[in-house]
Amino acid sequence: MGVGHAGQVMTDLHITSPANPRLKELLGLRRRRTREQTGTTVLEGTEELRLAIEAGVTPFAVYHCPELMHEAGPQAVDAARAVGAEVISLSREAFAKVSYREGPDGVLATVPAPGRPWDEIELPAHPFVLVVEGVEKPGNLGAMLRTADAVGADLVIAADCVTDWGNPNVIRSSKGTVFAVPVVSGTREQAWTWLAERGVMVVATTPDTDRLHTDVDYRSGVAVAVGSEKYGLTQEALAGAAERVRIPMVGRVNSLNVATSAAVVLYEAVRQRSAQR
Amino acid sequence: MGVGHAGQVMTDLHITSPANPRLKELLGLRRRRTREQTGTTVLEGTEELRLAIEAGVTPFAVYHCPELMHEAGPQAVDAARAVGAEVISLSREAFAKVSYREGPDGVLATVPAPGRPWDEIELPAHPFVLVVEGVEKPGNLGAMLRTADAVGADLVIAADCVTDWGNPNVIRSSKGTVFAVPVVSGTREQAWTWLAERGVMVVATTPDTDRLHTDVDYRSGVAVAVGSEKYGLTQEALAGAAERVRIPMVGRVNSLNVATSAAVVLYEAVRQRSAQR
Repeated sequence: MGVGHAGQVMTDLHITSPANPRLKELLGLRRRRTREQTGTTVLEGTEELRLAIEAGVTPFAVYHCPELMHEAGPQAVDAARAVGAEVISLSREAFAKVSYREGPDGVLATVPAPGRPWDEIELPAHPFVLVVEGVEKPGNLGAMLRTADAVGADLVIAADCVTDWGNPNVIRSSKGTVFAVPVVSGTREQAWTWLAERGVMVVATTPDTDRLHTDVDYRSGVAVAVGSEKYGLTQEALAGAAERVRIPMVGRVNSLNVATSAAVVLYEAVRQRSAQR
Repeated sequence: MGVGHAGQVMTDLHITSPANPRLKELLGLRRRRTREQTGTTVLEGTEELRLAIEAGVTPFAVYHCPELMHEAGPQAVDAARAVGAEVISLSREAFAKVSYREGPDGVLATVPAPGRPWDEIELPAHPFVLVVEGVEKPGNLGAMLRTADAVGADLVIAADCVTDWGNPNVIRSSKGTVFAVPVVSGTREQAWTWLAERGVMVVATTPDTDRLHTDVDYRSGVAVAVGSEKYGLTQEALAGAAERVRIPMVGRVNSLNVATSAAVVLYEAVRQRSAQR
């Protein structure tokens, strides 16, 4: 350790060998089970780290490779150190072993896996919730988190999703919003029961109804529900919802991407909720 | 050639060797330049082939691998033959050489590259157009085509896009809608001039305005314009547009995915245009 030079950052530890056991631990976090057992996940990228810290996340450790870092790299690493993260520098060879994205910018960090316990979540008077049931693709979850952030959603619930909130590709495609928007995950029974107990109106999207998404009043609170890429919402979800709505489609394929559907309905709710004020 | 057996299809040619020159030609179509020079592109997948034929496309040739085909495969191949396509069967080894997707289902076809000449395009009285300027990712172009299909857009213009409509990943992520929605591509000068000459109101999306996307009247025709993933619309596009609008965002990251933005604005236009009737 010592005083940092220009363009350098102070480091608690330097790892040169790709065989170092710390790197093996990092690789282990690519498995969902390890992430869930340790409550830890890994993110890669200067921007992702910056956004996570901005959202109040305290990284456990930051791994950086000085030769690969861009201009903004050292600042993000310093910000992580300032909130208490251990700082570890890696040789180019060691970084290559743990990096998982194309065009790495030499920054990687371990952070608490996103997601809150159900009993710690509080909703405001007219809540604005998104429920995603059975969604598989990390890119879709990430896109929906960006939308949820943009519309100011109070909560995003993953019900029976194949992918966990801590999945590094969710973190990446969410542009860090997975740390900014309150998220929770559980079974679909948990999700529907929890919402019912709080009296939140569930609006379920499905092609099999005549009611349009613009026909519903979203102003006194809503949980917009979308289903899996392949099958949509389950029968249970549709049967239990207060409203079933479809997005009008006149085309040949008649199936919007799930993240697109979520955005269209959420922004109709935004339009109505803003007009109210 | 002969009468097909159950689960088999008639074949004009059988290729067993991965070194066959026909396969090299197919591989060449992975390059944009070759696609543009030959006016031909390649699509892979039973569903993609089915959708293309449904949209009126006549494949030049269908390459199929009987061992890999699913139940719906032979029917799609027969449909291609019925509209005049040459049918070629490949050994598993030969198919592996030309297949470009994970989990191939043994169907691949050469088809006319999507996209019309500017002078063959006609717009109705109150046109509904999407312009995508400088977009890079095939997945985003594909998602926007699905939305354009769903809202019944009359035309999608790619202006200075890094990716061509014939890109196999665009075809794939568009779920075949690239063949169903009229598409054209050119420089941005061509695009803006063409729209101006036809008096189409351009509504440009940008974060740098106070006007919301819900504040504009879309009922007498519109070209909704979205820009590149990194930089948004060019200054020229913004300066030339009749309206500049933003999608309201209250979150931390304040940048929706480009396909999401397009969908939100297009569906606001749909809402207004339906209410008119």
